[in-house]
Amino acid sequence: MQLIDATAAERLYSEMGAAVEVSGGSAANTIAGIASLGGRAGFIGKVNADQLGDIFAHDIRALGVEFITAPARGGRPTGRCLIFVTPDAQRTMQTFLGVAGEVGPDDVDAALIKRAQITYFEGYLWDAAPAKQAYLKAAQIAHEAKRKVALTLSDKFCVDRHRAEFVDLVHGHIDVLFANELEIMALYETATFDEAVSAVRGKCDVAVLTRSEKGAVIVSPHDTVEVKVQPIAKVVDTTGAGDLFAAGFLYGLTRGKPLGECGRIAAVCAAEIISHVGARPEAKLAELIG
Amino acid sequence: MQLIDATAAERLYSEMGAAVEVSGGSAANTIAGIASLGGRAGFIGKVNADQLGDIFAHDIRALGVEFITAPARGGRPTGRCLIFVTPDAQRTMQTFLGVAGEVGPDDVDAALIKRAQITYFEGYLWDAAPAKQAYLKAAQIAHEAKRKVALTLSDKFCVDRHRAEFVDLVHGHIDVLFANELEIMALYETATFDEAVSAVRGKCDVAVLTRSEKGAVIVSPHDTVEVKVQPIAKVVDTTGAGDLFAAGFLYGLTRGKPLGECGRIAAVCAAEIISHVGARPEAKLAELIG
Repeated sequence: MQLIDATAAERLYSEMGAAVEVSGGSAANTIAGIASLGGRAGFIGKVNADQLGDIFAHDIRALGVEFITAPARGGRPTGRCLIFVTPDAQRTMQTFLGVAGEVGPDDVDAALIKRAQITYFEGYLWDAAPAKQAYLKAAQIAHEAKRKVALTLSDKFCVDRHRAEFVDLVHGHIDVLFANELEIMALYETATFDEAVSAVRGKCDVAVLTRSEKGAVIVSPHDTVEVKVQPIAKVVDTTGAGDLFAAGFLYGLTRGKPLGECGRIAAVCAAEIISHVGARPEAKLAELIG
Repeated sequence: MQLIDATAAERLYSEMGAAVEVSGGSAANTIAGIASLGGRAGFIGKVNADQLGDIFAHDIRALGVEFITAPARGGRPTGRCLIFVTPDAQRTMQTFLGVAGEVGPDDVDAALIKRAQITYFEGYLWDAAPAKQAYLKAAQIAHEAKRKVALTLSDKFCVDRHRAEFVDLVHGHIDVLFANELEIMALYETATFDEAVSAVRGKCDVAVLTRSEKGAVIVSPHDTVEVKVQPIAKVVDTTGAGDLFAAGFLYGLTRGKPLGECGRIAAVCAAEIISHVGARPEAKLAELIG
């Protein structure tokens, strides 16, 4: 994933092929997945009062997600991500954050966070100063309310930009960590995945480490659980695989499932999302997890 | 398909589930298909200078389609169709035409039409007075330039609304007619498909009559060609099946293919479109037709 500005976004869009518009945003995809699983969820994030913002708000509310963050009026437009998908389902993401990075401490709804079992953050928005302040405030509220805090490292390059802060975060403030193989190796600057597993063990309650077609590994202080991928007919677009894996896992956790079952639910959700274009579920996930 | 106004569109949207936004419009889908097949095509149609209009223009131009109709500024927004797809891939369409019905005679680019082998019209816009005048002007230009004119009847209810005018059109001004089983039976008010085939034979050069999973029948004055459906793994969303069938058929015609081969190409295009959500091809159709 690469961050781009408005000019680059416009130039790139003018050069890209015909596209499909789907609501997105990493954490928003996860929250949408949890709602599609039948979980209760809220979302805090900033859109503008433009057509794309209206669509975003519609889609997430239509799933039953509580989304009351006031949209911006004027200023930067709703953020967007231009995603190019190759025939072998790999994607390149170019993100124009737009107004998304302006979500700030004033947008943090303390009551919503106190009600939530888990507050989940995406590493991506650490690039935006007001968003980072919002995270810190929200995490503090969650912990003071004896709630859990989860984080996804989001992206290898994002980890590279914020390594010291992320290590500090993970070791002091995060209960559930999500990362893929490249991200966790980048966090600890290790040469192998196994070394990264050793490095993260015990630093947070649970680390959920995804490895694409090799499945996932769940690392708790005294246990390691392997999760297999769910077979599907055809991988169309891997966008959102990690987001939906997190959705399934968090849903399982909030329902008190054992880690292996959380991982199985997560793998089912990831399989659904990679079977079609876009990072929002097309099927009702609750009906797929059995 | 049902036409709705802005208020109904807003109410319905607020009640519908999370959605995927894809450029659409019946004739625009057909033109997109022709471009995806490697054909040269232009499009005349009205959007507003809003985000949805920008997306529409982007998508069709990105396929190489010539689209120079000036967007409206202010007034009605870009049209949209709210489509509900059931698990068995059937769809219900609620269309808010927005500014689309305001395409008028002044938007008709005579040079573009004179260059085109075939000018293709959708029956849908017959509901809008300025669009109808645009059609009549364009058809006259095409015929004066010794070019062919094609029409899709679009929708059974549309045929019911305009039967007398459509019969007159088909019998006097149309070279290639597209209709599905229900539409052609509605046009001639026949009880059976076979009676409708007899009624339309000889009234235009070619009538292309689609019958969903039963394939299609191509009716020329002295010949009848049956077209089989192309097998696919899973029908996801039948939206656009007729539009893409027309795309394949028109492409074949412009390349001088025999009617049976035009039908085969058409069936391949229809199969691609019903295998995913949305009425624009996700694959490069040129690579599918062999």
